[in-house]
Amino acid sequence: MNATTFCQKLSAAAAANDSLLCIGLDPDIDKLPAAVRSDHDPVLKFTSEIIEATADLACAYKPNFAFFGALGEGGWRTLESTLERIPSHIPVILDAKVGDIGNTAQQYARMFFERLGADALTVNPYMGHDAVEPFLAYGDRGVFLLCLTSNSGSADFQTLEVSDGQLYQSVARQAVAWNSAGNCGLVVGATRAETLIEVRRLAPDLPLLVPGVGTQGGDLEAVVTNGQDSSGGGLVINASRSVLYASSGVDFAAAARSAAQAMRADINGLRQAISA
Amino acid sequence: MNATTFCQKLSAAAAANDSLLCIGLDPDIDKLPAAVRSDHDPVLKFTSEIIEATADLACAYKPNFAFFGALGEGGWRTLESTLERIPSHIPVILDAKVGDIGNTAQQYARMFFERLGADALTVNPYMGHDAVEPFLAYGDRGVFLLCLTSNSGSADFQTLEVSDGQLYQSVARQAVAWNSAGNCGLVVGATRAETLIEVRRLAPDLPLLVPGVGTQGGDLEAVVTNGQDSSGGGLVINASRSVLYASSGVDFAAAARSAAQAMRADINGLRQAISA
Repeated sequence: MNATTFCQKLSAAAAANDSLLCIGLDPDIDKLPAAVRSDHDPVLKFTSEIIEATADLACAYKPNFAFFGALGEGGWRTLESTLERIPSHIPVILDAKVGDIGNTAQQYARMFFERLGADALTVNPYMGHDAVEPFLAYGDRGVFLLCLTSNSGSADFQTLEVSDGQLYQSVARQAVAWNSAGNCGLVVGATRAETLIEVRRLAPDLPLLVPGVGTQGGDLEAVVTNGQDSSGGGLVINASRSVLYASSGVDFAAAARSAAQAMRADINGLRQAISA
Repeated sequence: MNATTFCQKLSAAAAANDSLLCIGLDPDIDKLPAAVRSDHDPVLKFTSEIIEATADLACAYKPNFAFFGALGEGGWRTLESTLERIPSHIPVILDAKVGDIGNTAQQYARMFFERLGADALTVNPYMGHDAVEPFLAYGDRGVFLLCLTSNSGSADFQTLEVSDGQLYQSVARQAVAWNSAGNCGLVVGATRAETLIEVRRLAPDLPLLVPGVGTQGGDLEAVVTNGQDSSGGGLVINASRSVLYASSGVDFAAAARSAAQAMRADINGLRQAISA
């Protein structure tokens, strides 16, 4: 178990690196730079170089389980080795979007929190409280519930009108109600950054994980303006493809560093403008 | 790729074994019988014996990914080996309840359909159409969308009133709309068997995967009465713990067989009563 909670670790890393930027580790085997393909573990070589090039720029890393699972039997070891490359003071948000009945959720908690040692996990709320509680029971770990996602399909169900607003608002309300251990957060896509005002109204103190600012084209200014909590934190802005695949050449790691630096600078510029 | 579609394979196995019973493979390391614990791979020993004892009684097997993932690095190989033990004419419904944006969903499809060779997969619909399409694009595989689950938390969101009924009804409607390849099904918990009338009205032709008849206490008669399609099929009734852990003694496999036989007989008795 960690000595500190996820939220404390996140705040400390954000302060140390002056960053709200989370780097998503989605190592797509079809997109890896030629420079790593001859390595005995090309994905690990790629993630290791990305991490080394960005470790002073990120407040968190978000490995995406699917990209490691798609590697087959060796994927577990590659994921585990990738996690070992992440400096211990930077939190790992494992993105697996799990959600199942209680006894199964306990197994996922064991898998991601105990076996892999993740600091936080993304969880799908569709199955309700007893599918979420086994994760929240790990009080030192973070649990980010999908609220309003960045993809076009988010309009199919998440924005349906229910009795007290839209479905994603109901998820935000429940997340606040379930947050007795202070370790629950929400995923809100940057492509719907205007809704961050509403999410912040409903959940003023919950950390928000915001994907979709890079390749997906979300509005960074609206994310920073609307997404920060009253202390100017509580916001984790994720970029995956725009950093990982900034260059497909031998300079991929340097290009990833430049992309991360630029995004961190953009975010910090907006933060300063707001607090000024 | 399979020569036949999932639905054809399911129908053939159901006919061959005269069964609508699916056996869920949820090998909880803490519940394994003492008789297998000294094996070099206790979970594989357990699942192999369960499969061997029930292979003439089941229309499908439903391995639960969480229980294999919780084993850590060796879990993938144990799952793969378990799948190898399932006779090739019986379909495998891999229960992982995945759901993510398109490029990530493609990785999960690769993981579960290509690497592990699953015939069908459970998918969480919360993120909408583009999170589901990459799975449906595998026309020979089945995709079971979570509709109304068997746990108490299903009341938190799934039964919220939306414009045209409750949320789970909206999921059922969308599943029908997205089912252009004829490979989409729904998960509907047996603990809410009365709602199967409504799901069958909205989705008369979709296969239904119904968990919750065993340990969770669902109403088997209502499931069979309300869940079959007009041809008397299209229904996959899952039991996991009530079969797997029927005995913790050396007779665990024989006890699992007896439990599966009894449930198949109960189901078939109800089917005959309905068709009479």
